[in-house]
Amino acid sequence: MHHLLTLEDLDRAALTRLLDRAEHFRTHAAPRDLLAGRTVLTLFFEPSTRTRTSFVLAAKRLGADNVNFDLSRSSTVKGESLLDTLHTLEAMRLDALVVRHNENGMPAYLARHANTGVAVVNAGDGTHAHPTQGLLDALTIRQRHPDFANLRIAICGDIRHSRVTRSDVRALHTLGVGDIRLCAPRAMLPESLDAFPGCTASEDFDAALADVDVVMMLRIQKERMAAAQFPEAADYHAHYGLDARRLALAKPDCQVLHPGPINRGIEIAPDVADGPQSRILDQVANGVVVRMAVLAELLATPA
Amino acid sequence: MHHLLTLEDLDRAALTRLLDRAEHFRTHAAPRDLLAGRTVLTLFFEPSTRTRTSFVLAAKRLGADNVNFDLSRSSTVKGESLLDTLHTLEAMRLDALVVRHNENGMPAYLARHANTGVAVVNAGDGTHAHPTQGLLDALTIRQRHPDFANLRIAICGDIRHSRVTRSDVRALHTLGVGDIRLCAPRAMLPESLDAFPGCTASEDFDAALADVDVVMMLRIQKERMAAAQFPEAADYHAHYGLDARRLALAKPDCQVLHPGPINRGIEIAPDVADGPQSRILDQVANGVVVRMAVLAELLATPA
Amino acid sequence: MHHLLTLEDLDRAALTRLLDRAEHFRTHAAPRDLLAGRTVLTLFFEPSTRTRTSFVLAAKRLGADNVNFDLSRSSTVKGESLLDTLHTLEAMRLDALVVRHNENGMPAYLARHANTGVAVVNAGDGTHAHPTQGLLDALTIRQRHPDFANLRIAICGDIRHSRVTRSDVRALHTLGVGDIRLCAPRAMLPESLDAFPGCTASEDFDAALADVDVVMMLRIQKERMAAAQFPEAADYHAHYGLDARRLALAKPDCQVLHPGPINRGIEIAPDVADGPQSRILDQVANGVVVRMAVLAELLATPA
Repeated sequence: MHHLLTLEDLDRAALTRLLDRAEHFRTHAAPRDLLAGRTVLTLFFEPSTRTRTSFVLAAKRLGADNVNFDLSRSSTVKGESLLDTLHTLEAMRLDALVVRHNENGMPAYLARHANTGVAVVNAGDGTHAHPTQGLLDALTIRQRHPDFANLRIAICGDIRHSRVTRSDVRALHTLGVGDIRLCAPRAMLPESLDAFPGCTASEDFDAALADVDVVMMLRIQKERMAAAQFPEAADYHAHYGLDARRLALAKPDCQVLHPGPINRGIEIAPDVADGPQSRILDQVANGVVVRMAVLAELLATPA
Repeated sequence: MHHLLTLEDLDRAALTRLLDRAEHFRTHAAPRDLLAGRTVLTLFFEPSTRTRTSFVLAAKRLGADNVNFDLSRSSTVKGESLLDTLHTLEAMRLDALVVRHNENGMPAYLARHANTGVAVVNAGDGTHAHPTQGLLDALTIRQRHPDFANLRIAICGDIRHSRVTRSDVRALHTLGVGDIRLCAPRAMLPESLDAFPGCTASEDFDAALADVDVVMMLRIQKERMAAAQFPEAADYHAHYGLDARRLALAKPDCQVLHPGPINRGIEIAPDVADGPQSRILDQVANGVVVRMAVLAELLATPA
Repeated sequence: MHHLLTLEDLDRAALTRLLDRAEHFRTHAAPRDLLAGRTVLTLFFEPSTRTRTSFVLAAKRLGADNVNFDLSRSSTVKGESLLDTLHTLEAMRLDALVVRHNENGMPAYLARHANTGVAVVNAGDGTHAHPTQGLLDALTIRQRHPDFANLRIAICGDIRHSRVTRSDVRALHTLGVGDIRLCAPRAMLPESLDAFPGCTASEDFDAALADVDVVMMLRIQKERMAAAQFPEAADYHAHYGLDARRLALAKPDCQVLHPGPINRGIEIAPDVADGPQSRILDQVANGVVVRMAVLAELLATPA
């Protein structure tokens, strides 16, 4: 594993090893010298303080040097090409480059042009992939259900534009989940299920929730609601919001996940978000240890 | 001591212990591993690079990991509630949260909702409190007058809106100062002295300065001067500025304090700010060690 | 050496010692505790993420604490004077202050007023000096030509406004280079060569390139091109761009340098920037180790 661009490249053994390593970091004191002397640079073209902070803490807790390349003041403002920025950063002796970009494939593009010594980590690109989110969601689910084989999982929200869903599905399918139900209004369902192996799709959220072990809710953008003919947040909530009544359709111990930040009262009711079945804060905690595992896997070899 | 929200909760012994610890940090090499592995996050809703830098240096000099949560790019922009941001940060395994906010009581609100493992430090809230400023001012005064009992102290400026004054008065009163003179034009005096134990108030700065051991000047906002019927800075300076003539009314060794940044020629004359009685830069230096003492007190226990 | 403000103060022995130390850092593991407990603060009044990142990495790789003083949120916004900011930062126990400013002489001004314990490093001031750039360019050249004595060097671009050129010339002249050819359209040539010892000036780039060992290209600003009567980038490129044809006029092993970020197709053709004679990325790598050497030289003495 030289880069982490998408979860498609990882087989079940590779995924399991990363999850095991993350779980180990969660339950043991971090080896604060594992990445001593290594440099992790965060390069976010889309703002996301949460995800960036999670990567920064992961790097620091393993002893890496961390630098944030502040794009609002960067040379790209002066018209430097992205590849020139990449090679400049590499020349400063970079070990990992954590990239978020609103265009699909930009981290892969950087990885293709990166020096062999530099690991590129995709922190979310367009609608394509968000592999560390897929890993942390798989870890969160596994903490309650060590065997993925017989799980039933519903994912509800703007599936079509969701990099989170694409990475979640890829991880869960590879780990053996056979029943993944994508649910959304038509305008938010993908045109094809090719990128969603092992999935079925429907517009009926109540039906999709029947007997599921896990329900994963997605953050909704207001402009998407309007396009899906829900002009008001309350309309969307009535049809696709997860509230206590709907959650009762799932298995009694059904876990509720959401990648955050949540829109209270839109895609999720406050009592569900804060209720005993919510794993939302566990996801945040798992996010840090998953990113530690990824950085350790990519970097903790002789420099 | 789980949080530091206001100095009202601290008795003389607790204050003295913090000041002793700060003094120790000032005169000894910092124990750079005291907070190794602990995470201090700064969350400033009001800009203050000075105070933030002071906290960051305090954290680093004790070996803590420091992360600045950049609000200009944060999820709160996306409409996430403050409590959801708090719990998200906590889930990343935060040890201390240093908060500045323009609303009174916001740090206390966060502390009430924080996990038991997280210490909230108030870095200034509205007009309510600025406890580390109160501590650093007490430390600065004590370095010249170890016994607070017989001190006479004047505080001059916009007392009504000053969180600095409220915390200074609380610390000094608890430490035994019996004569604290608040001085300002009427529009800047508080409507009641309830929150100012041990204080008297007047509008006559010359009289207030008689024989004081310490004079603490406050930074003035231009809009406040106008409200107090001083349309020009020179007018305010003529009545409430500290210059050499006025300073001569105080005791010969009277210490001059100011929380900074100073408005030269408005509330303080340059020759006084830069003169031998000025302790302004000592205050800055004491600010770092006081914040080290606070973080050490709150965090340097088994995690 | 208490500060690094310009290279005029350094004789050949001092320059050589810095270059030797930088070369040592490039080829050996960094002594990560050399500057442990020391504080390096970056204070950039002009944005430059590249240069700032280079200094930050240099500081971290020697174990120093690093703080960026964020001017967009700083007290200077509140009207504090620059000297008050300086003294405030010093009082927080600063060891080095890395300053970039668009006015000539501002780092020297701060150095004159700084405490004796604080080292000021000029990270570029106006059109005056950029000493670490001069050092890294000299190091880059020396890696191929250990003896500077018989080198022929051409520098092409907006010489008149270039702090890079002034520092490059100063370093190369002191190190013994006798033939330095400044080349630019008239509007970009300096009015006098007083600040450019050992240099000749011309407007004919082809002639200037004859048999040179090194060609240093400068980044061009669009507004400067117009002032020099090149309304289009292509016009400038035709007369002063370095392409393969022109590079063939130099010696076969001629090194190509550029301080970055490059304008592809304006002052330099892409195939030259990316070609085998380009040292542009070596310059970036050398920038980090040169800054490590400067910080080590200034700070690695008993505090």
